[in-house]
Amino acid sequence: MPSPHLDAVLARIDADLDASLDRLFSWLRIPSISTDPAYAEHCAAAARFIAEDLASLGVSAQVRDVPGAHPAVVGRVDGPAGTPHALFYGHYDVQPVDPLDLWESPPFEPVRKTLPDGREAIVARGACDDKGQVMTFVEACRAWKAVTGSLPIGLTFLVEGEEENGSKGLPAFVASIRDELAADLALVCDTTQWDPRTPAVTATLRGLAYVEVFVRAADRDLHSGLFGGAAANPIHILSRIVADLHDETGRITLEGFYDGVSEPPPEVRARWEALGLTSEQLLGPIGLKEPVGERDRMIIEMVQSRPTCDVNGIVGGYIGQGTKTVIPAEASAKVSFRLVGDQDPDAVCAAMEKHVAARVPGDCTFEIVRHKGSRAIALPYDMPALAKAEAALAAEWPSAPVVIGSGGSIPVVGDFKRTLGLDSLLVGFGLDDDRVHSPNEKYDLTSFHKGIRSWARILAELAEG
Amino acid sequence: MPSPHLDAVLARIDADLDASLDRLFSWLRIPSISTDPAYAEHCAAAARFIAEDLASLGVSAQVRDVPGAHPAVVGRVDGPAGTPHALFYGHYDVQPVDPLDLWESPPFEPVRKTLPDGREAIVARGACDDKGQVMTFVEACRAWKAVTGSLPIGLTFLVEGEEENGSKGLPAFVASIRDELAADLALVCDTTQWDPRTPAVTATLRGLAYVEVFVRAADRDLHSGLFGGAAANPIHILSRIVADLHDETGRITLEGFYDGVSEPPPEVRARWEALGLTSEQLLGPIGLKEPVGERDRMIIEMVQSRPTCDVNGIVGGYIGQGTKTVIPAEASAKVSFRLVGDQDPDAVCAAMEKHVAARVPGDCTFEIVRHKGSRAIALPYDMPALAKAEAALAAEWPSAPVVIGSGGSIPVVGDFKRTLGLDSLLVGFGLDDDRVHSPNEKYDLTSFHKGIRSWARILAELAEG
Repeated sequence: MPSPHLDAVLARIDADLDASLDRLFSWLRIPSISTDPAYAEHCAAAARFIAEDLASLGVSAQVRDVPGAHPAVVGRVDGPAGTPHALFYGHYDVQPVDPLDLWESPPFEPVRKTLPDGREAIVARGACDDKGQVMTFVEACRAWKAVTGSLPIGLTFLVEGEEENGSKGLPAFVASIRDELAADLALVCDTTQWDPRTPAVTATLRGLAYVEVFVRAADRDLHSGLFGGAAANPIHILSRIVADLHDETGRITLEGFYDGVSEPPPEVRARWEALGLTSEQLLGPIGLKEPVGERDRMIIEMVQSRPTCDVNGIVGGYIGQGTKTVIPAEASAKVSFRLVGDQDPDAVCAAMEKHVAARVPGDCTFEIVRHKGSRAIALPYDMPALAKAEAALAAEWPSAPVVIGSGGSIPVVGDFKRTLGLDSLLVGFGLDDDRVHSPNEKYDLTSFHKGIRSWARILAELAEG
Repeated sequence: MPSPHLDAVLARIDADLDASLDRLFSWLRIPSISTDPAYAEHCAAAARFIAEDLASLGVSAQVRDVPGAHPAVVGRVDGPAGTPHALFYGHYDVQPVDPLDLWESPPFEPVRKTLPDGREAIVARGACDDKGQVMTFVEACRAWKAVTGSLPIGLTFLVEGEEENGSKGLPAFVASIRDELAADLALVCDTTQWDPRTPAVTATLRGLAYVEVFVRAADRDLHSGLFGGAAANPIHILSRIVADLHDETGRITLEGFYDGVSEPPPEVRARWEALGLTSEQLLGPIGLKEPVGERDRMIIEMVQSRPTCDVNGIVGGYIGQGTKTVIPAEASAKVSFRLVGDQDPDAVCAAMEKHVAARVPGDCTFEIVRHKGSRAIALPYDMPALAKAEAALAAEWPSAPVVIGSGGSIPVVGDFKRTLGLDSLLVGFGLDDDRVHSPNEKYDLTSFHKGIRSWARILAELAEG
């Protein structure tokens, strides 16, 4: 039976919403871009902010050094006897903001905005990913604390600052404090709903392999008038490398790339078919029509259960204003692969090296820089917490929750399983149109408000033990 | 019979060399980058510098506005009765200097440097292209003026500031002052020698077509975790467009691209074969071995008489430090074509548009921006001034001069022919290892010194009428 305090907690959340937004906005104003060393101080400030906020909930939160990385915030508070103990994970770091000129308001000056369809939203870098999502959980705890004087279950908080940068150093850090992080399960708020009316619990996460490819030809930039027609052009070589990554059916051509790729269980596949997601629904809102993935797959498979390859950046030669007739000495590309099933990130990187080596002429050179990779994650569909979360979400939202896979990666979920033996309950309130990682990132006010209420309900369910 | 003054003029040049270098260095210190609007004031300063220097030779030199472009310097001085009148052309603008970190000395702080093989050189942006080359002619005139009190022939000077930017506005400007520019022939110093011991007269110039290609997919940057596998990636599309520009034999695939491409006369081809240029000779010094041009062509053809296609710049997505899992909304490339014979720049641009259109999916868009193009140039091999120049160069240099084609474009030469009815005598002293358009651009001291002496001799020959 549900907690007698739940209604009061939900009422408190409603009454406190404006103050909750003020707290979130203060955090969003800190430009905690983890991938650019120039923002290191801001990352530290964002860590201090959440540590102090958690302390106000009675959590013994501290900013901890993570070797070679931005600091992490760790804090623990015990719950009532007989209740489970959960490890909550989130991240305070955000993606870079370029291209800055496409932002309609400054990325680190959060604003409330009414969308064309009437939805209210919070616009800022990190509004959704992940500061807004983290705050849905923190504010739920704050309401419980205000109404009952304590939290309904025991909690350990781990808020890192390198998630957008491959969670550098986190696996070693988690291992180094494994006893502190001991819990019954992990709670992660960094995923999406199905749609604005339908919440979701995420059961699978794609992994990631990420490489930078550098192709070098002549030992200097050349004048295309003097050498054009004879000298190798690294942009041409790199373009061939990229063009050959996919065949005409949308399949990735790397040798052995699909080794370890598995199909979802039939009942899950049936649920997906029942959802009836169309290309228009997924691609229409971003101005596209035709999916580019494997021809024989449902679009929900393309973005959730199939591996992918995308070039995330390419540069070579003169990219300034006007023209320059140069043959550059070097060209480079950042290439990422989303992995599923048992695909091995190292094997994918090795296959990419073979793919590149086969396309670079003997008198040119190449270099492959491997960034941190992660394997895909699949959670047990029969995990008890999953049913409790579904019940809590069903009580809060107009449509019943769905269990989905996520196209994105949350490497720490793998570390929790391997290092701490914890399964993770992945519940989040992002939407596909949140422009995560893009200019004008937003978070629906409904996602924030009902997200807080949803976590309050989930905590109540979990407290039932 | 040669001028009785020539020996004195040559002696004067030798004695005045250090002062000549000081004057050149002062000009090189002005960062007159024409393609970047931020340097407009410096371009104007470089124009004033050469105008004042020419005035000191008795030339009525003025800085003239060129609509929509950096100013040009125009000045005239009459020669002795019965001597021909020549139009000298050069440019004071230079290429951008990026990547700046590859310069061993600041690009606009000229220095004298001894090369590993013992050659003395001047290092600076513009040291060769084209300030150093222009100064070989100006210093030759200065020596004639100092020794004889006047110049040996009548001269009109035209020094423009948009050559590295497609000579924007120059054709209209030349047409607007055609009477002022009336002459018997044009003299142009913007080409190369054959090697450090062998001077050259350039008889053919490749033309140029230059386009920027923009490919646009989604209406915003996307998170590759959420949309990867389904959403079109403009970098992939652009890479396919670039990869398909050449076939496996090195030929360019654009429809009708080779229309109007002609073969050189047999005697010229024979001369080229006699020169025996090897891949090692041309590519070895820049760290390459294998020519990438059409398989069945001599390397001298690849860089002189065959058309080419090079991507001079490409950019898309995240190119900063670290990683970002983004699918960009746009990717773009700067693509240039070197043209020969009767190839039509407009037709080449149109064929490129068809090539791009055929490779952009229906739900994505593209844009092609055309920059100023130029047709190829072929000068009459029987032009009298060519024989005079060969005689003068033979007297100055250890090896006999050769008549070559240039891979580069000097669009104004076409305008001189079409608008003024003038053939151009193309003599220059650049070398393939001058790093023109690249970091650490240099000009051999011998090229500068003997270049001045060569022009002094050529002026004497031309004065013979």
